[in-house]
Amino acid sequence: MNEHAVLDRICATGSFGPEVRIGPGDDMALLDLASESSGTGVLVAVDQIIDGIHVCVDGTPLSIIGRKAVARALSDVAAMAGRPVASLVSAVVPMGWSDESAIELFEGMRDAATQYRSPIIGGDLAVHQDAASPLTCSVTVLARPTEHGPVSRFGAQVGDRICVTGRLGGSLDEDGAGHHLTFEPRIGEAIMLHAILGEQLHAMIDLSDGLGTDAAHMVERDPCMQMHIDASLIPCSEGSSWRQAVHDGEDYELCFCTSGLVPEQILECPVTEIGRVVECSADDARRVVVVDGSDEHDVTNAGWEHVTK
Amino acid sequence: MNEHAVLDRICATGSFGPEVRIGPGDDMALLDLASESSGTGVLVAVDQIIDGIHVCVDGTPLSIIGRKAVARALSDVAAMAGRPVASLVSAVVPMGWSDESAIELFEGMRDAATQYRSPIIGGDLAVHQDAASPLTCSVTVLARPTEHGPVSRFGAQVGDRICVTGRLGGSLDEDGAGHHLTFEPRIGEAIMLHAILGEQLHAMIDLSDGLGTDAAHMVERDPCMQMHIDASLIPCSEGSSWRQAVHDGEDYELCFCTSGLVPEQILECPVTEIGRVVECSADDARRVVVVDGSDEHDVTNAGWEHVTK
Repeated sequence: MNEHAVLDRICATGSFGPEVRIGPGDDMALLDLASESSGTGVLVAVDQIIDGIHVCVDGTPLSIIGRKAVARALSDVAAMAGRPVASLVSAVVPMGWSDESAIELFEGMRDAATQYRSPIIGGDLAVHQDAASPLTCSVTVLARPTEHGPVSRFGAQVGDRICVTGRLGGSLDEDGAGHHLTFEPRIGEAIMLHAILGEQLHAMIDLSDGLGTDAAHMVERDPCMQMHIDASLIPCSEGSSWRQAVHDGEDYELCFCTSGLVPEQILECPVTEIGRVVECSADDARRVVVVDGSDEHDVTNAGWEHVTK
Repeated sequence: MNEHAVLDRICATGSFGPEVRIGPGDDMALLDLASESSGTGVLVAVDQIIDGIHVCVDGTPLSIIGRKAVARALSDVAAMAGRPVASLVSAVVPMGWSDESAIELFEGMRDAATQYRSPIIGGDLAVHQDAASPLTCSVTVLARPTEHGPVSRFGAQVGDRICVTGRLGGSLDEDGAGHHLTFEPRIGEAIMLHAILGEQLHAMIDLSDGLGTDAAHMVERDPCMQMHIDASLIPCSEGSSWRQAVHDGEDYELCFCTSGLVPEQILECPVTEIGRVVECSADDARRVVVVDGSDEHDVTNAGWEHVTK
């Protein structure tokens, strides 16, 4: 494989707006942020996928894997209610891959990046020294806050409604029609929610590890706040129980806390109130509690963790 | 290993300036570029290192490996004559690594990033599913052009002097005292060169793959330009021949093309004129020619390529 030629070929087919002053191929890309009306702030994050952990190369088209790598990173943009601006991608592929395989992977990334107006302005491609080492992809996304500013994951207030978009659970099931591969990052929904709720949209996160783990992050900086969720209100995917909705992860839906009134849907995506942010004792280690009838379940960190024992 | 805890621990020890409005830990970091005087442009690039290709975990302290991952990316900032602003890092480590090993790796990254005022504002850590899969690190750097603007690798003009900083060759030799692990990215030198030469600094690149390969990139967009280098002028590292200086790679020195007069050293770093950009026939595929007495050697793509056959 000639990494330089593969990268050149992908980058030559990207479409860039006037804000890309220097595109791929130079030592660095140059992005001009002046054309945007949202001040001088730039949002940036990195995310990665590894074969065998987040995706399975054996049985999944490489273009779909490339798409997921970018869509996962763009889900972070949605969580901040930002507008994507540009992406940078790097991949290490197993020895023995053909140029065509690498191109299919990068085309999947490029197409997803183009769809969400986040063109790939930089990249790197390397080859493992053996065929058994797994594909790894790292994606950096740059975005702009809207005129309403960014939405942190940490701004929840006691009394806030806890809401989620879409339906949760079963994303990784084979019956789940591969939602973890086909999800659309909720970028438009997040921007519209922010426009509707304004400063009443206190906090937001995207659900990648599962509602239990991710909702816990939202209150991890305040020992006296707890997320109280009503099991009967959780919008479960067809065939999923509330436990699956809390544990499975890879939903890439939004969870947000707001003092405002929430529409039932936004851009045709259902929005569901599932609970409240409550005050708790600093001694109470339970960050997320699911109330199921008369039972309380501690689901803190009940999610899909990539923790190795 | 608990990836979240390791990342939290590293990020908690970073030092951030006022331009970091939202630091690590949220879905994305927010950087405010208003405090800079250099307009609204932001430079960005991604680079990666893989164990067994760019570094050797067996026998190299992990902090040194982390340092190299960041320093390589910062060398791209030097090549554009930019000022570093922030970094994002991601790593996939072999199964079985302790938290302490991952922390040592990330501390190496953090210390290098801090040294060059490019604090780590985002990161991701994952673990391979087996112990045999190699460490991979991906580093994204953000930088600002100075008031003189960025320096592309593609602006060379016929008649320009070709110059290099430092000494070339032998970086990967064991005798070479591990220059590829200890080099300082030429950020200050690049900014000062740009300040001295102004618009006469037409093009610049950093030498990672070797002078043959990298100098060829500088003229790859113009079939009628050729880099003519005088073998006797190449500043070889002690013990290296001109062939090694052209082929070895991993020097992380700067190569630049200028119509201006060049100082003999800059910030105590030697600067050497090694040749000229000449006009050639469009039929001449030789992009870089080394003239050694009466012999001409085509050294185009004579560098250290990570190409797998």
